[in-house]
Amino acid sequence: MSIAQQRVDEFLRTLASDAPTPGGGAVAALAGATGAALVAMVCNLTIGRKGYEDVEARMRAILAEAETARAAFLALADRDATAFDGVMAAFKMPKETDADKAVRSQAIQQGYEGAATVPLEIARRAADLMELARETTEAGNANASSDGACAAQALSSAVWCATYNVDINAASLKDQSKATALRDEVSALRASARALLDATDAAFGSRLG
Amino acid sequence: MSIAQQRVDEFLRTLASDAPTPGGGAVAALAGATGAALVAMVCNLTIGRKGYEDVEARMRAILAEAETARAAFLALADRDATAFDGVMAAFKMPKETDADKAVRSQAIQQGYEGAATVPLEIARRAADLMELARETTEAGNANASSDGACAAQALSSAVWCATYNVDINAASLKDQSKATALRDEVSALRASARALLDATDAAFGSRLG
Repeated sequence: MSIAQQRVDEFLRTLASDAPTPGGGAVAALAGATGAALVAMVCNLTIGRKGYEDVEARMRAILAEAETARAAFLALADRDATAFDGVMAAFKMPKETDADKAVRSQAIQQGYEGAATVPLEIARRAADLMELARETTEAGNANASSDGACAAQALSSAVWCATYNVDINAASLKDQSKATALRDEVSALRASARALLDATDAAFGSRLG
Repeated sequence: MSIAQQRVDEFLRTLASDAPTPGGGAVAALAGATGAALVAMVCNLTIGRKGYEDVEARMRAILAEAETARAAFLALADRDATAFDGVMAAFKMPKETDADKAVRSQAIQQGYEGAATVPLEIARRAADLMELARETTEAGNANASSDGACAAQALSSAVWCATYNVDINAASLKDQSKATALRDEVSALRASARALLDATDAAFGSRLG
């Protein structure tokens, strides 16, 4: 069953179990979806409110982006589990002949690459959305500024959780140029998340008065 | 309906709406529950596994603590909404006579204090559990070390999201000694979360090899 359709407590029970998926990758995607929902919440608490007429058009645009992102993150939560299942299926392939071994080894490498690609997409989307979390915290309804700051925290946690999963899959790649390219993007995404989290934190502090 | 019993996508839809609750406080509690589930996951992937006999008893003890914490966080997610509803109910109290106004003002202040107390409990529990996230990342199944690191991220985000809600409620308190005591504890919890997140990150890096 899709993670989106599971009950909160049932998802958490499965997460806590010894099944290898869902794990940190699905958590990253759900943190992204939660951050997107909180950005949307701040927009919805700003649109049509007295004193916020000047930012209304912008809040409508951000709301549309946040709603698209929420759906994308929920789809990525399911895709992450499937990608990792691919690694495990490859490990179960026959390895009797040299030809078997070559095919299996290639499938394993493709599995790790695929399992790194999905969290990388989660991290990219979450880092992008952090700029909108910062903007809604700064310019949205002041009473909801803590929700904007929480959006930034959820999205930052999505970036980090996702990139830990990129790291662990990249560590199994034999192609060092691919592994290095992944690690470089991870570093850039983390640096961006750190800067946007600090900026949002400062915006929240100034809304607090 | 209890948040634990809601479907993931339905909870997120309500979160994104213009209803003032659920908001960042419920998100903090759910991030705590998610972190607790990930700590339990690492324990469950370590107990009974070859090469981890020495840490098995310890992992069983951590598992029990993580399971208790998960249930507590789910209860706190519901309590947070109720606490904030208390503030809003107080604002709707009559304010015709001076006596009305005095009673209403006291109820509002008690409402803010209560609304600050629940996220403070979330932040305390999350900060405590971060030490166990660090330990499972360092000593648990190496293949699940990314899940341990994600647990620390989820718990750190719980500490921050919860303390933003302490901040915003403390800002409305007239009793400055109470407000200062709340802010001092917030600072201490954030410092602890920052240090434990860095330590867990380092532990994950060393497990990665």
